[in-house]
Amino acid sequence: MRNIRVRVAYDGSCFYGWQRQEGFISVQQAIEEAIEAVSGQSVNVYGSGRTDTGVHALGQVANFQVDTPITDYRLRGALNAHLPKGAVIKDVETCDPGFHAQHSAVGKRYLYVIRNSSYRPVHGLQLAHWTPKPLDFEAMRIAAKAFVGEHDFTSMASSGAPRKTNVRRVHSLQMRRRGDTYWFMIQGSGFLYNMVRTIAGTLMEAGRGKLDAQGIGAILRAKNRGLAGPTAPPGGLYMVRVLYREKMAWDGRRAMH
Amino acid sequence: MRNIRVRVAYDGSCFYGWQRQEGFISVQQAIEEAIEAVSGQSVNVYGSGRTDTGVHALGQVANFQVDTPITDYRLRGALNAHLPKGAVIKDVETCDPGFHAQHSAVGKRYLYVIRNSSYRPVHGLQLAHWTPKPLDFEAMRIAAKAFVGEHDFTSMASSGAPRKTNVRRVHSLQMRRRGDTYWFMIQGSGFLYNMVRTIAGTLMEAGRGKLDAQGIGAILRAKNRGLAGPTAPPGGLYMVRVLYREKMAWDGRRAMH
Repeated sequence: MRNIRVRVAYDGSCFYGWQRQEGFISVQQAIEEAIEAVSGQSVNVYGSGRTDTGVHALGQVANFQVDTPITDYRLRGALNAHLPKGAVIKDVETCDPGFHAQHSAVGKRYLYVIRNSSYRPVHGLQLAHWTPKPLDFEAMRIAAKAFVGEHDFTSMASSGAPRKTNVRRVHSLQMRRRGDTYWFMIQGSGFLYNMVRTIAGTLMEAGRGKLDAQGIGAILRAKNRGLAGPTAPPGGLYMVRVLYREKMAWDGRRAMH
Repeated sequence: MRNIRVRVAYDGSCFYGWQRQEGFISVQQAIEEAIEAVSGQSVNVYGSGRTDTGVHALGQVANFQVDTPITDYRLRGALNAHLPKGAVIKDVETCDPGFHAQHSAVGKRYLYVIRNSSYRPVHGLQLAHWTPKPLDFEAMRIAAKAFVGEHDFTSMASSGAPRKTNVRRVHSLQMRRRGDTYWFMIQGSGFLYNMVRTIAGTLMEAGRGKLDAQGIGAILRAKNRGLAGPTAPPGGLYMVRVLYREKMAWDGRRAMH
């Protein structure tokens, strides 16, 4: 029995999220069906974490156990031939039996993309969040600094499942702008439910002047979700990379490609 | 009666090309219907040129005559409210009665986007041409140089309608690469039918080593369409900008935004 890890990209607008659920096509189910079509085996695919409906991935990681003589390289092609067009397996690697996509992960990187034009974008509308209200990029950059470091992120999370602690470490948060496209890349040890989207919503409120860009630290310290901005829509969010202690075959390749 | 020019963006995968044709939704028809809905007047919209099904636009220009008291700014919003989601009017400007989007044009700029990854892209598949065969960027850059300047482009055009001369001037052709995305921006005095797509197909053949990158000049001089590469697919092509002698209200704004 081989333990195989894969790196997966998908267009979130084509699926009802990552996790399998009765009656709705999920990415997990699409991959499990592709594996069954190729190997004849019904397997469970374990993702590094769930993504909601509409959320994209450039480098989601998952693993599964399967018994097949097909090489990694040919398995990639065979699985892709059975996946719907909104999903693709970028890499396949047979790995240590102890590797688990979720439990072995030590961090994650996400991207959030905002289009700030007065008219509705026509190209790739589902690939970014569009807001016509003018955003002050400098204010957003100032606000972004408050999230870096170790904080209790209760103010930036939907309640979701109970957990031991809401303390997480954000390694970096980089904001970029090009023309009317704004994006930020955030990397951390882990993220609470809806945390990146709430940070995105809070940054946009700072960009509109509705929240004080200098006051984000105080919002974090208040541990009160009601003080932060709204949860930004899923279409702007991309899971870019999952971090592990060990080296992956695809390390060094950019998640975008 | 006002003469109004508009700058239009559209996703080519949402329409059967620019030009109105019975039974198929075209961009021209969508705009004419929006004008009728707003003004109650049935008008003809004149584009700077046709684009084929699948070809995108970031800055197509068109004009029409209409009798309405609505300001330019409010007209933009009203027309956009009536356009399908694959098209948007970025700018509206009341202009000189003598302005004609096609006849006043003195040049055009196009963009062609290629994705060169071993697996099928999942994000924005219809927004670029995908080819899994490896492309040598340097060879493509060398080949691209041959197109700049004044040449007879018979070798790079589909026959189409008869014309006086196949000589055109290409002002510039810039090739760029970022990761697995290649694109080139070409600007010229005018383009023959399918000329940009044939240049794209020829550059890709040079990138694959099927055509000698140093031999493109000889292909042009031979005036033989059979010697060039294939006509590249429409989904990679964007009409970026139409050039006029007079200043447009939107000059200075990037066509992308």
